[in-house]
Amino acid sequence: MAIPAVEALVFDVFGTVVDWRGGVIAEIERVAKGKGVAIDGAAFADAWRGAYVPSMDRVRRGEVPWTRLDDLHRATLDRLVVQFGLTGLSETETDHLNRVWHRLPPWPDAIEGLSRLKRRYIIATLSNGNVSLLLNMAKNVGLPWDTILSAELVRHYKPDPEAYLGTADLLGRKPQQVMLVAAHNNDLQAAQRCGLRAAFVARPHEHGPGKADRAKASGQYDAVAEDFVDLARQLGA
Amino acid sequence: MAIPAVEALVFDVFGTVVDWRGGVIAEIERVAKGKGVAIDGAAFADAWRGAYVPSMDRVRRGEVPWTRLDDLHRATLDRLVVQFGLTGLSETETDHLNRVWHRLPPWPDAIEGLSRLKRRYIIATLSNGNVSLLLNMAKNVGLPWDTILSAELVRHYKPDPEAYLGTADLLGRKPQQVMLVAAHNNDLQAAQRCGLRAAFVARPHEHGPGKADRAKASGQYDAVAEDFVDLARQLGA
Repeated sequence: MAIPAVEALVFDVFGTVVDWRGGVIAEIERVAKGKGVAIDGAAFADAWRGAYVPSMDRVRRGEVPWTRLDDLHRATLDRLVVQFGLTGLSETETDHLNRVWHRLPPWPDAIEGLSRLKRRYIIATLSNGNVSLLLNMAKNVGLPWDTILSAELVRHYKPDPEAYLGTADLLGRKPQQVMLVAAHNNDLQAAQRCGLRAAFVARPHEHGPGKADRAKASGQYDAVAEDFVDLARQLGA
Repeated sequence: MAIPAVEALVFDVFGTVVDWRGGVIAEIERVAKGKGVAIDGAAFADAWRGAYVPSMDRVRRGEVPWTRLDDLHRATLDRLVVQFGLTGLSETETDHLNRVWHRLPPWPDAIEGLSRLKRRYIIATLSNGNVSLLLNMAKNVGLPWDTILSAELVRHYKPDPEAYLGTADLLGRKPQQVMLVAAHNNDLQAAQRCGLRAAFVARPHEHGPGKADRAKASGQYDAVAEDFVDLARQLGA
């Protein structure tokens, strides 16, 4: 039986499309400076991101009801501002800081690569970020998505199978007609177990200096690309 | 208290953005001609659309479980091909015909108007059409949505309040920060009862010749526009 052609590309976002670490560090250091506090922005960013998977896992295991990522981020932030001594933030300032995840910068190749891929494929997010986060991010920097798809829409965080299968269903496509693009092996392999295609894109700077070894493909993928422009070339877009 | 500014425009689609009647008539007449059958395409289109509200109402009343619009359309189509004597269609041909709703033509001002509005606002669908229908339609003719929102995502058809309130929630906005754009008074008034803003756009040709009286604004709206370019002008976009 012929494998149906890929019609839709869905993208992991944090780390794959945008530089969460660089964006969070810059914002934390700006805020801390404004408050006259000395903070290691990289340590803060890594601690914030470090709570990401454990906080979603509590939702995935059913220990807490469905909670959107903005609210998981906020619970972690409230803990970290105390831990790092980032005092004196008003509620408005804290809320604005929490939304730094809505304002992350894309990797330099992202917009050019997505614009090329969009001419040939449906391009959509498939992120654990909530819809409004992903939409605000896209409007802020001009990410040209055809639509925003999110764990929020199926109420299952990746790597739950429902996140991948529910997304293919919303797209009206068979899993084999949908390809996940991500910089993370666990995400891609969970998608493959659901029948989706998988493209690995290397993001050696995601975790900061000296961590490029975390950004190596460790599976059998339909494509392995240097960046989104290289992916567009490989996919004929 | 100041009314917060509108940040997102959400659009009814069938009749407001695209000419469902013209699109369905053209497709039915093309298919019928190919099968050597004489059919009144306008009567077929009106009968198909005539079953739209009653079929959704059965879902809204809970008489049948959630059913996406593609499947409601198909159940009606299966009845109409018998009634109109449109025989000899294969399953593939019937499925393709059912998806004519994915391939409807936009009104002449729609793309220009949306492109202008997109520079200032988030622009999204808020349609009873399912996500894949709206996405395929957008890709087919180049409707420049920031994202596709649909009754399917909240599992409530308009005019259920959940459709409007759930959409504002996904957008991360208060209802007053969201404006529905539609050519239909009942849709706009249901949105207003939920606290959304409302803009009426006249589509005098939606129901065919001699039916322009069905396209008059009959409420108090935040804007009443001739078309999407006029709306962009009124909203400063």
